[in-house]
Amino acid sequence: MPVSVPKLKDITEAAKRTAGMIHHTPVLHSRTLNTLFDAALFFKCENFQKAGSFKSRGAVNALFSLDDAILSNGVATHSSGNHAQALARAASVKNIPAYIVMPGNAPSIKVEAVKNYGGLITFCKPDLQERENTLKKVIEKTGAIEIHPYDNFHIVSGQATAAMELINDTPPLDFILAPVGGGGLLGGTALSARFFSNGTKVVGCEPGGADDAFRSFRNGKLIPCTNPRTIADGLLTSLGELPFTIIKKYVHDIVTVSEKAITAAMKLLFERLKIVVEPSAAVPFAAILENKIDVKNKKVGIIISGGNIDSEKLAKIFKQQ
Amino acid sequence: MPVSVPKLKDITEAAKRTAGMIHHTPVLHSRTLNTLFDAALFFKCENFQKAGSFKSRGAVNALFSLDDAILSNGVATHSSGNHAQALARAASVKNIPAYIVMPGNAPSIKVEAVKNYGGLITFCKPDLQERENTLKKVIEKTGAIEIHPYDNFHIVSGQATAAMELINDTPPLDFILAPVGGGGLLGGTALSARFFSNGTKVVGCEPGGADDAFRSFRNGKLIPCTNPRTIADGLLTSLGELPFTIIKKYVHDIVTVSEKAITAAMKLLFERLKIVVEPSAAVPFAAILENKIDVKNKKVGIIISGGNIDSEKLAKIFKQQ
Repeated sequence: MPVSVPKLKDITEAAKRTAGMIHHTPVLHSRTLNTLFDAALFFKCENFQKAGSFKSRGAVNALFSLDDAILSNGVATHSSGNHAQALARAASVKNIPAYIVMPGNAPSIKVEAVKNYGGLITFCKPDLQERENTLKKVIEKTGAIEIHPYDNFHIVSGQATAAMELINDTPPLDFILAPVGGGGLLGGTALSARFFSNGTKVVGCEPGGADDAFRSFRNGKLIPCTNPRTIADGLLTSLGELPFTIIKKYVHDIVTVSEKAITAAMKLLFERLKIVVEPSAAVPFAAILENKIDVKNKKVGIIISGGNIDSEKLAKIFKQQ
Repeated sequence: MPVSVPKLKDITEAAKRTAGMIHHTPVLHSRTLNTLFDAALFFKCENFQKAGSFKSRGAVNALFSLDDAILSNGVATHSSGNHAQALARAASVKNIPAYIVMPGNAPSIKVEAVKNYGGLITFCKPDLQERENTLKKVIEKTGAIEIHPYDNFHIVSGQATAAMELINDTPPLDFILAPVGGGGLLGGTALSARFFSNGTKVVGCEPGGADDAFRSFRNGKLIPCTNPRTIADGLLTSLGELPFTIIKKYVHDIVTVSEKAITAAMKLLFERLKIVVEPSAAVPFAAILENKIDVKNKKVGIIISGGNIDSEKLAKIFKQQ
């Protein structure tokens, strides 16, 4: 069965559908950072989004796209954290239960947040097979419908609205950089660039220790992520089929970054932009720090995907530097 | 000589004069924090201001209010940091030299920032007498004009624009909370509330370890700050005469907070609002944490005064908790 890819109207409709339930997040910039990199950098702050990340866009869009009859037994998913929070919050707005399968090593701040939004958590071992098996059991038991974190038409349409807003709020951009894990954000970003700013090149940024998207993009076929090793806990999953279909077609390039660059990027965003970003969200800026993309004299949009990190973890990261 | 207090038109003119040279900063809010305190909290993010604090408002207003002839030998001040950065930046926009007297214990990030804006630093011992003596010598030598950090008509008029923006961008507020050190921000805030939102009560918030404003307010006369002990390095100075004249008349109350509450407030703002605030900027929210102000069912504006803290210092603070 061919994969159905969101069209322009799916994204504009997602923006209308979700308005009022998600934030139109601000775009920050810094003269100091622009001088440092000889570029005009525009940071789209999804760390200020509802539930702390862009994932709220897709989750709200998905739940308000589906018929109430389909949602009557609630929704379910597996997620290392941000999609879980976003889905739990969206479900609480819809007043339906959210069953969340989480890996046992998920950050405590993310687990607590899911609980606070009323999400019902089942823990499992932190690998994809275990997550999928556990989710299957939960769905059999509850009759809930699965809302996949990224391999889902409505999720990708929702995530695309972040780049749509960024494009509307900035001068014409040469590049938009987004992190890539499952690919929902990168895929949505690529679609929005294609539809709303056709000259803008979209580049996916990935930790070298979890480089399945990089390798899949180079090889032209999906290569699963095995044994990922990175501080960027939001980017541990494998690229999805729908996002990969979009990425192959519309993404300009995928680059990888070192762990050291990720923490250096977090620190610079902290000290210069005064914002809290989780490691995954610092990956695109890390690519600029490591000169993986030539941004000199360019206008560059950077999607800061989320801000869910606890202060103890951040203290540890900054201490190690 | 009676002290001249800014009028409504001085503040609206300051807003016009500084527009384009300072940021109209965003107001953030959080459903989680509102639920936690049973209030509607509006955080005015001056940590995103040019040079990292509200001080840019006053500095730009002062330098663009004075005649060029008066400024021909440059400007000078003593400051533990944020006014220094702001003045150095404003002077660089005006293309005149800025001579900055700084205490030797000023945070390194603030010292570096002053240097980056082209400020010419003279270090001194960290007490008021030493700072004033050193500044006097610098002025004698250079012929620069002193721009006092808070005991200055144009500075207070400029700082007032932060609360003016906050009032314009929010529903009618029951309270506005601001930190108090020298009193420029609190004085300006009180004037803006008086002129633009007369029913709003302004409360000054001060560390218990540097409570000269609290004691001055209670006693009706200026009591200098001696041997202050607080993590809030922006609030070590004594209340100024002009600010005190305003504060006595228009401020509803001044409350003090513990050091523990300051770091807890920083952490909560970090984890919930995803913003970086310096200790001084967390003092008003700390007053809410310690129930020093009854905010239940109230609409409360909170001025987040600045975000200039280095990541090592923050890591240390969060580790100690």
